Amino acid sequence: MTAVQVAELYGPVAEDMVLVEDLLESTKNVDLPPLKRMLDHALEARGKRLRPALVLLAGHLGDYNLNKLVPLGAAIELLHTASLVHDDVVDGATSRRGRPTANAVFDNALTVLLGDYMFANAAEMVTRTGSLAVTRLFALALMKMTSGELDQDAAAFDAGKDVQHYLWRIGGKTAALFANATEGGAMLGNCDERVIEAMRTYGYSFGMAFQIVDDVLDFIGDETVMGKPVGSDLLEGTITLPGLLFLERYPKDNPIRRFILARRDRESRLREAIEAVRNSECIDASMEMARDYIRRAQEAIAFLPESETKRCLIDLSEYVLSRNS
Amino acid sequence: MTAVQVAELYGPVAEDMVLVEDLLESTKNVDLPPLKRMLDHALEARGKRLRPALVLLAGHLGDYNLNKLVPLGAAIELLHTASLVHDDVVDGATSRRGRPTANAVFDNALTVLLGDYMFANAAEMVTRTGSLAVTRLFALALMKMTSGELDQDAAAFDAGKDVQHYLWRIGGKTAALFANATEGGAMLGNCDERVIEAMRTYGYSFGMAFQIVDDVLDFIGDETVMGKPVGSDLLEGTITLPGLLFLERYPKDNPIRRFILARRDRESRLREAIEAVRNSECIDASMEMARDYIRRAQEAIAFLPESETKRCLIDLSEYVLSRNS
Repeated sequence: MTAVQVAELYGPVAEDMVLVEDLLESTKNVDLPPLKRMLDHALEARGKRLRPALVLLAGHLGDYNLNKLVPLGAAIELLHTASLVHDDVVDGATSRRGRPTANAVFDNALTVLLGDYMFANAAEMVTRTGSLAVTRLFALALMKMTSGELDQDAAAFDAGKDVQHYLWRIGGKTAALFANATEGGAMLGNCDERVIEAMRTYGYSFGMAFQIVDDVLDFIGDETVMGKPVGSDLLEGTITLPGLLFLERYPKDNPIRRFILARRDRESRLREAIEAVRNSECIDASMEMARDYIRRAQEAIAFLPESETKRCLIDLSEYVLSRNS
Repeated sequence: MTAVQVAELYGPVAEDMVLVEDLLESTKNVDLPPLKRMLDHALEARGKRLRPALVLLAGHLGDYNLNKLVPLGAAIELLHTASLVHDDVVDGATSRRGRPTANAVFDNALTVLLGDYMFANAAEMVTRTGSLAVTRLFALALMKMTSGELDQDAAAFDAGKDVQHYLWRIGGKTAALFANATEGGAMLGNCDERVIEAMRTYGYSFGMAFQIVDDVLDFIGDETVMGKPVGSDLLEGTITLPGLLFLERYPKDNPIRRFILARRDRESRLREAIEAVRNSECIDASMEMARDYIRRAQEAIAFLPESETKRCLIDLSEYVLSRNS
């Protein structure tokens, strides 16, 4: 996405996103040279900053206090980045979005400590919101995230898990932090309890759809746009929604199971499995579940009076379904 | 140490330490079976709980509110344990105090996530103190700890660092968390600013001495009591105070430098280096620096009126100098 497109997506808060950027940038100012080099590398790749944008938008529904909202937005983005840094160590990944990972440039040992430092810095930053309740939510979100990640790693190459289990896992791994962004933003905006609750549901459902689309793209995405090969999840033994639906619907002689059990010809088995799922109705069925979550997100905020912010939240939720990377 | 000796050391707060133990125990109650197994393992080895005891003692100088002090004590112990879990991954350590490390039993990937979960749980626990200021201090302490660890790892096998640099590093790696325990405990006890400041100095100086003694024991300790071989630090390339003093005083043809540069016969070079330092005056010189920090700790609290708590804080500081494991 270009800067113009982002500005369109983030509507009333687009211009203030630079404050989040500045605060993130300031975290690189450390005295220790090896840490500085590592932070420069980890924070160089800029994502779309979806989570901080959601913090600001949620806060925009109430008292729009940037002195509180910007630290929460930056803290959540920093936490998200730190978790990617550790995930890459855990997965032994050497590139992400076309760039070498921190563990590929430095080493695993230093990269574990880099992630720890970023977690700590994120925790310090969230205390700048002045809200103990929001700080507490933030810590709880990290507990859910790591539980989800741990479960994914522990259940790798296990074809016996079901869709329910998948939804629990991505609820922790991904949706918890989106929910933290929107709920926390609304809390810092001193919104009514009903609005805070609605924004929590919006963020959680948004995050669920976001992860499902991500998992669908791992089957049908364009490798050059995504910056990673198709089938990366399955290669690591992570069976996501399209694969689980496919296993459920075609229990006999299933190419996913064949890949999971394969000791030889893993590459061609992987290609067969990806191809089979891609050509099945399970892709559409997965996207229908994502659409369902987006409907829930929109329903949750339907009662809000019409505003540019509400419009923007609805548009953003639609964007999740249309993204291709 | 036996339970009786601990009770003697922790005086007026000894009986309340069971509350810290119960709260730590409760963190194992998680739904996810692989996480539960890992938490059971990581929390099985019980240390002396020095840090939580210092939290309670500091709080005992003011309003002794266990509803606040116990969560801080447990949070600090959990943070300490999480950092050991990650350190063992970073160092590739297979045993600690005679028990296999988490990364040896599970694998590095899961162990990184285990540590992350424990950090998050510690952060959640510290918010139960109800104090945003204490929560903030806690996050800052973790930033200092990881900076110190990162520096140690980045400076491994570098014989060009000096004593000043070593003191900065252990200030982050070790003393910051001790200072957090005593300062945070005094804050939660609503102590006067002067007492809070004194307890920060006490905890910091206590932690500096604690680490120096630890580093001396790596040269002269009894392997069976310590549960790890002598020279473990140097083997990993970490040059601690006795070695730095030895390098400074004997710049020519130094066995420490010979080991650091050695590509062959590393085992016998290590033994030579350890032996040379052990037989030098650098052990005494290091212990004299530790004693000096303990003097500072005691001076910091000298103005406090006499009490059982003050007596206990002084005795504990003396214990640091006499410990052998």
